[in-house]
Amino acid sequence: MNMIETLSRGLPPLLATAEADTGPMVLAGVLLSLVVIYIASKLGGELSRLLDLPPVLGELVGGVLVGISALHFLVFPESGATASDSLLMGILQQLGDLSPQGVQEVFSTQSEVVSLLAELGVIVLLFEIGLESDLRELQKVGYQAIIVAIFGVAVPFGAGTIGLMTLFGMSAVPAIFAGAALTATSIGITSKVLSELGYLKSSEGQIILGAAVIDDVLGIIVLAVVASLAKTGEVDVMNILYLILSASGFLLGSILLGKVFNKSFVAIAEKLKTRGNLVIPAFIFAFLMAFLANVIQLEAILGAFAAGLVLDETDKRKELDKQVMPIADILVPIFFVSVGAKTDLSVLNPTIPANRAGLVVAAFLIVVAIIGKIMTGWTVFGRPGINRLAIGVGMIPRGEVGLVFAGVGSASGALSESLEAAIIMMVIITTFLAPPFLRFAFKSSTPPEEAESVESESKQPMSS
Amino acid sequence: MNMIETLSRGLPPLLATAEADTGPMVLAGVLLSLVVIYIASKLGGELSRLLDLPPVLGELVGGVLVGISALHFLVFPESGATASDSLLMGILQQLGDLSPQGVQEVFSTQSEVVSLLAELGVIVLLFEIGLESDLRELQKVGYQAIIVAIFGVAVPFGAGTIGLMTLFGMSAVPAIFAGAALTATSIGITSKVLSELGYLKSSEGQIILGAAVIDDVLGIIVLAVVASLAKTGEVDVMNILYLILSASGFLLGSILLGKVFNKSFVAIAEKLKTRGNLVIPAFIFAFLMAFLANVIQLEAILGAFAAGLVLDETDKRKELDKQVMPIADILVPIFFVSVGAKTDLSVLNPTIPANRAGLVVAAFLIVVAIIGKIMTGWTVFGRPGINRLAIGVGMIPRGEVGLVFAGVGSASGALSESLEAAIIMMVIITTFLAPPFLRFAFKSSTPPEEAESVESESKQPMSS
Repeated sequence: MNMIETLSRGLPPLLATAEADTGPMVLAGVLLSLVVIYIASKLGGELSRLLDLPPVLGELVGGVLVGISALHFLVFPESGATASDSLLMGILQQLGDLSPQGVQEVFSTQSEVVSLLAELGVIVLLFEIGLESDLRELQKVGYQAIIVAIFGVAVPFGAGTIGLMTLFGMSAVPAIFAGAALTATSIGITSKVLSELGYLKSSEGQIILGAAVIDDVLGIIVLAVVASLAKTGEVDVMNILYLILSASGFLLGSILLGKVFNKSFVAIAEKLKTRGNLVIPAFIFAFLMAFLANVIQLEAILGAFAAGLVLDETDKRKELDKQVMPIADILVPIFFVSVGAKTDLSVLNPTIPANRAGLVVAAFLIVVAIIGKIMTGWTVFGRPGINRLAIGVGMIPRGEVGLVFAGVGSASGALSESLEAAIIMMVIITTFLAPPFLRFAFKSSTPPEEAESVESESKQPMSS
Repeated sequence: MNMIETLSRGLPPLLATAEADTGPMVLAGVLLSLVVIYIASKLGGELSRLLDLPPVLGELVGGVLVGISALHFLVFPESGATASDSLLMGILQQLGDLSPQGVQEVFSTQSEVVSLLAELGVIVLLFEIGLESDLRELQKVGYQAIIVAIFGVAVPFGAGTIGLMTLFGMSAVPAIFAGAALTATSIGITSKVLSELGYLKSSEGQIILGAAVIDDVLGIIVLAVVASLAKTGEVDVMNILYLILSASGFLLGSILLGKVFNKSFVAIAEKLKTRGNLVIPAFIFAFLMAFLANVIQLEAILGAFAAGLVLDETDKRKELDKQVMPIADILVPIFFVSVGAKTDLSVLNPTIPANRAGLVVAAFLIVVAIIGKIMTGWTVFGRPGINRLAIGVGMIPRGEVGLVFAGVGSASGALSESLEAAIIMMVIITTFLAPPFLRFAFKSSTPPEEAESVESESKQPMSS
């Protein structure tokens, strides 16, 4: 039990061993990380709102401020940081009288826990977004979303790969990898901004969301193709086929099954009489779907989104929305602040010579990334008067998915260091530009239907 | 980024390495653990309610069922289990094609994460209990609580130690250790049962809660004394003094400081306009207090309880109660189910010869544990008509604190294996008997004021 370690700390000079010492320090580290994350998210979010920008941008910037790029409160081992790079670990070491090895252990466990809380955060975010989305509305815009997604993958991929080969004289494999990194939209950032602006339920919002989901699936498939190409020089057709079938099977199957499960869910929630009678069955379903999506090699967030869509169809959705909201409020900021904290802005520094080659390539990738997605707005057919600019802009942020490409590419040896840095720059810029761009794109549009949105920039309803 | 690992799983035969493989599997393991925990807590809680017992008893039993004693879904390395003992890990290994070393890594990280979520669960529980408690009411019963706590520590300690030395011929150090293990009440279990029965705000409930908090502090001091005695044969007076001063300083200081902080908290929450404007500042305060308590070598839950008490004094408390509730609903069951899952019932098996010696000692300890605490009810003065039996019974569960003594004692070599097993049995029996006993003790009492209790066995308010 961790409690054993907790209390045995009452007697440091007597019974403490390196091992027994780390348990309560991990708890202390996680608590302090959460305090830092919450302060960064609130300061950033509120400042962002005062500047009339989407709060999530402020949360990302708040994360950058406390992260690897600036204050070093919150750093993660994945970026190559060790415990001695972490200000927070320094504080704990002072307070807890830890050995160097003990600190390293606490640092690695604490980082794992915070990263996992961040992953639960984005899972709950997508569950909430699913609850706020309307399956019927999504089906109505389904064809448009598919077209937007396919163009939004094909155009940046093609333009990026060909541009790098012709303009920069790169060989095929790294060019294809970098082109592939331009494909997938970050659902988390886009959907959060849409929700904050009150446009999630608009046609534009639903097309963006639908396209982003399909995009994500296409991105996973592209990654599989590209990575097998980089590794063996040929494509593992069976694996690709498996991915395509399992992805479409999962999404369609969960929606069909959901229509049946709806009624059982309400019946179960009504039978239960102890606390959490609604929210616990809902989370069982959401986490189970996230688990299944993860296990069939999709992303966990897709499962959570599908679970939200299914439960949105029930009579209980308003009550559920209300109860999921505070849970999302405390988990979701962990995700956005962590994304910011993990962003290493030093790759943008032009005074470091190694960055300069990357900067030119990065500039090219950024232009392709932005223009390639903005164009997709004009592929939407049969929707006169729709805000095409907003749809294109909504697809811009690459977020974590782009970083995945950079990471896999560098691990497989296909990417040079400067090309990897260029991809990371592209991800940073598209992620941070999308929220203000999206706000701008919607400025010219009709005002959103405020009515039902659970997420708005205004205060939460305070009293019943 | 963990996401890098998540996606790289799209291509197992190509890029997967043991290291890159574990990230998404840890997420999958945590998600599946949470699903198992939630199902066990709901099945157990609802069955318990049908049998007219407190739901938390069912959650504990549900935990036992999925844990080390029965189904082996949820096992923890602290109990000596390895990945191969875990059914859940077996499932993941099948699904994820993990190497034996990879499974062990996933198992250990996943266990750390679930244990930490459980600790956050009990922190949020005590924060909620603090929010539900009334500081003025607690102050009114302060003297009675102190008397109850002191007697509740002294009587079982004295009777246990002397009994073991005279009746069983034990030497002083192990007898003192076992006696000390009889002292501290588990706040988590007692407060949850009180809350479920609707008696948290009664005079009895407030005395029990106050006494349990003081008990916990006394328990930490007793542990320090006993452990230093066991280790060096003498008492480290400075450390004991430090603990006494820091504990009383922390509790009194936080309450005094809180009276000032109250108004700033409300002012801050009213200034904030983005989502989570109330719940995030509240959690910053709660986690900061928990961190501070942890750092000055108290328990984190005492800090969270103090934070809840302070915020209970603000105008925002009803809104805050409402928002903390669903958060507690999803975190608190992780604690209770984990406690159950970590409980190894095999020490109770009389067919194993090694258990028999322990069983006789255990029977003695259990009798002392129960009678020693029940007597404390009759030390309450100046409160005619109070339910003395309920107060005594409320102090019975030893929960995790007793296990801490067993763990520290066995680590220091002061306890024989059979004495350690006897202490664990005492903890199991008092923990599991307290909920039904407490229900019985309150049966003869006047019904609780239903009105304001956020925690009741009935359904949550479903609509605004």
